[in-house]
Amino acid sequence: MTSDDEQARPSRRNFLAGAGIAGAGLAALRPAAAVAQVAPSRPTPAQADEEPFYGTYQGGITTPMQSSLYFASFDLAATKRSDLIAMLAAWTAASARLTAGLPAEPGTQNLADPPLDSGEAVGLNPQRLTLTFGFGPDMFSLNGDDRYGIAAKRPAALVDLPHFNGDELIDGQSNGAICIQACANDPQVAFHAVRQLARISYGAATLKWVQSGFSTANKTQGTPRNLMGFKDGTMNPTSANVAPVVWAGAEGPAWMQNGSYMVARRIRIGLEHWDRMNVAFQEQTFGRTKHTGAPLGSTAEFDTPDFDATDADGNAIIPDNAHIRLAAPVNNNGATMLRRSYSYNNGANFVAERWPPWKQGIEYDSGLFFQSYQQDPRIAFVKLFDRMSKIDALNQFTTHVGSAIFACPPGISKGQYIGQTLFAA
Amino acid sequence: MTSDDEQARPSRRNFLAGAGIAGAGLAALRPAAAVAQVAPSRPTPAQADEEPFYGTYQGGITTPMQSSLYFASFDLAATKRSDLIAMLAAWTAASARLTAGLPAEPGTQNLADPPLDSGEAVGLNPQRLTLTFGFGPDMFSLNGDDRYGIAAKRPAALVDLPHFNGDELIDGQSNGAICIQACANDPQVAFHAVRQLARISYGAATLKWVQSGFSTANKTQGTPRNLMGFKDGTMNPTSANVAPVVWAGAEGPAWMQNGSYMVARRIRIGLEHWDRMNVAFQEQTFGRTKHTGAPLGSTAEFDTPDFDATDADGNAIIPDNAHIRLAAPVNNNGATMLRRSYSYNNGANFVAERWPPWKQGIEYDSGLFFQSYQQDPRIAFVKLFDRMSKIDALNQFTTHVGSAIFACPPGISKGQYIGQTLFAA
Repeated sequence: MTSDDEQARPSRRNFLAGAGIAGAGLAALRPAAAVAQVAPSRPTPAQADEEPFYGTYQGGITTPMQSSLYFASFDLAATKRSDLIAMLAAWTAASARLTAGLPAEPGTQNLADPPLDSGEAVGLNPQRLTLTFGFGPDMFSLNGDDRYGIAAKRPAALVDLPHFNGDELIDGQSNGAICIQACANDPQVAFHAVRQLARISYGAATLKWVQSGFSTANKTQGTPRNLMGFKDGTMNPTSANVAPVVWAGAEGPAWMQNGSYMVARRIRIGLEHWDRMNVAFQEQTFGRTKHTGAPLGSTAEFDTPDFDATDADGNAIIPDNAHIRLAAPVNNNGATMLRRSYSYNNGANFVAERWPPWKQGIEYDSGLFFQSYQQDPRIAFVKLFDRMSKIDALNQFTTHVGSAIFACPPGISKGQYIGQTLFAA
Repeated sequence: MTSDDEQARPSRRNFLAGAGIAGAGLAALRPAAAVAQVAPSRPTPAQADEEPFYGTYQGGITTPMQSSLYFASFDLAATKRSDLIAMLAAWTAASARLTAGLPAEPGTQNLADPPLDSGEAVGLNPQRLTLTFGFGPDMFSLNGDDRYGIAAKRPAALVDLPHFNGDELIDGQSNGAICIQACANDPQVAFHAVRQLARISYGAATLKWVQSGFSTANKTQGTPRNLMGFKDGTMNPTSANVAPVVWAGAEGPAWMQNGSYMVARRIRIGLEHWDRMNVAFQEQTFGRTKHTGAPLGSTAEFDTPDFDATDADGNAIIPDNAHIRLAAPVNNNGATMLRRSYSYNNGANFVAERWPPWKQGIEYDSGLFFQSYQQDPRIAFVKLFDRMSKIDALNQFTTHVGSAIFACPPGISKGQYIGQTLFAA
């Protein structure tokens, strides 16, 4: 345990005390040895599969995608600015440890205390865990109440997302005051991290909604496929071009410089319906060839789509309502964003389809937890999706059932806490 | 495509026709090239990470655990014995292909047809995929109707599970006429397999409920940990001892010989509540040390628990209601079973806790999808859990919200279909 850790971790016990924990009374049924080592201390040197926690930018944005996501959105119960800052400092200290594969809290476990760490990640390496934090509109002010004295610092780019055509957002599965995105190459490690941070924030933040996800990005050579069977992400900016797309700069508030704006959308996909379509129709829907990922009329995945090409009858080869036509930067005055989406399986439940074969019954509650990162959502996601929500051929198979936007502050150096530029300025 | 495949795959188009598919009409918006290769043919020799599909036993039972589970339970809509057999034959042929990393159906994709395979596993190796099939009570007869002429062949060991103390089973999330357990080292591959089989059975089987799960079994040296942070599976029979525990023999119907009975229970765990308990109490609840997994009073995970040991005050070192005391074969006339359970995350939803700190709010809908395999549930799961459901200290943190039992028939040779011993005899 370093002195940096100590400095940044002032308050877990305060939150616990504030929440009125009665566990000790229930638990003291038997005498216990004084201490026990519940988790090993850190191996040296740095562990395999460790992503850096400190840096100019937060991890988990331009970091190559891991295989698992666990995303959590919280309401804030903290009533004072100092409590919120203390929570962020505690999250920071714990995150530095968790991303290094260490238990959430340092020290030696006393058997008469609740666990310093719930323990299910013991024995695993960090699995490339990244933790990414975002601040939602409700953090800046809630129902007009400037609880934390930061209302004036809300960036204009952190817009309230408009109602888009076709939105069927589920109450309680959208928005939030603060979020944690945990990505790792193991679902237990990702969930473990969020769970530890949620424990640390008892009394200051309360869970609002969560979403787990999966991707084959770390197993597939090249672009991974989504559950519709198509390669997804071909048009993402390359690493050489990603910086101006993703990172906020001097155009907005100084505290957000080197941060990014995240838009998250839970998109349920009618997979049973999709699977009944013929492949030609699927390809026309996307505007790409299913096997190769090539734009229709081209031969290779990364060929530049020819949006002007027509067939012998004068019809566009890439249909007017094809997904890639609507999404392409070239058709949107250059507007683009970094997509970093995970597929999800939330079980199965009853659906009445809106299209032939008009099936009613139990279907997969499955689809895409879409996430995009951008310098300014007003000229990226909002602009792009406003048009797509109206005419994209994909809309026949997709329903947006959750939505959120967050301002993800810049990365930090050791000794700082996540969001410090917002509160310290 | 082999002649075996051809023989065993009679009926997909029949099912589709029966379901009244209208996709072709919707889909024929544009002219399409005649054919397209949507998925690659099989690499030779056999792929990496391939589990055998054929054999004396079905895979996925004594197979070392993979990291991901996708489990689906179906009702049967087939009205005729021959339709059910045709479905099983089609599932068999597709399963042999899927476990080898091939598309669900052989042949060359015609662009004017629905996909032979939905495509999202293209480019991945088999990821140790296993597919395990089980027959539920409703397959043998439904509301007294012997639809398939097999009611008399229902094994006595395929009992209707009794209502256990504390059961809070959710309608529509339990039971089923037939199940598929897909396990693989990738969640997309596991889901992909069930999705293809469900497509093939359109009109014959309808989805009832599903559950996805995860485990660190393939990443942890030794016994993996569950979400309560404890090693889970220490008392499982070793591979040398597993056969008499798991496989049905001459004691039951001949058609089930080398099969096994699966009991599945969706167990929601109050993780937030658990995390507030002190470690000593957690250890007393399980009867094991959290870090090492050793029985209380012992030093190593696989030490034989000393259930007679007492402390200076005469109290049992391993409490009377500790989980391992109640589960141990030695305390149950030798009764045991093979547990093969996955943790699950189904999001988060509202809970009112029954215990201090009496919290009401959004909590993880998370826990353990418990699965056990045994020669006879009457003398294994039912006997063991009847007592545990009443006095196990773990019950303070767990709620059984789903339940099912299935007879998993023996493995097959090439040319046979899953369940052939039941229908052919």
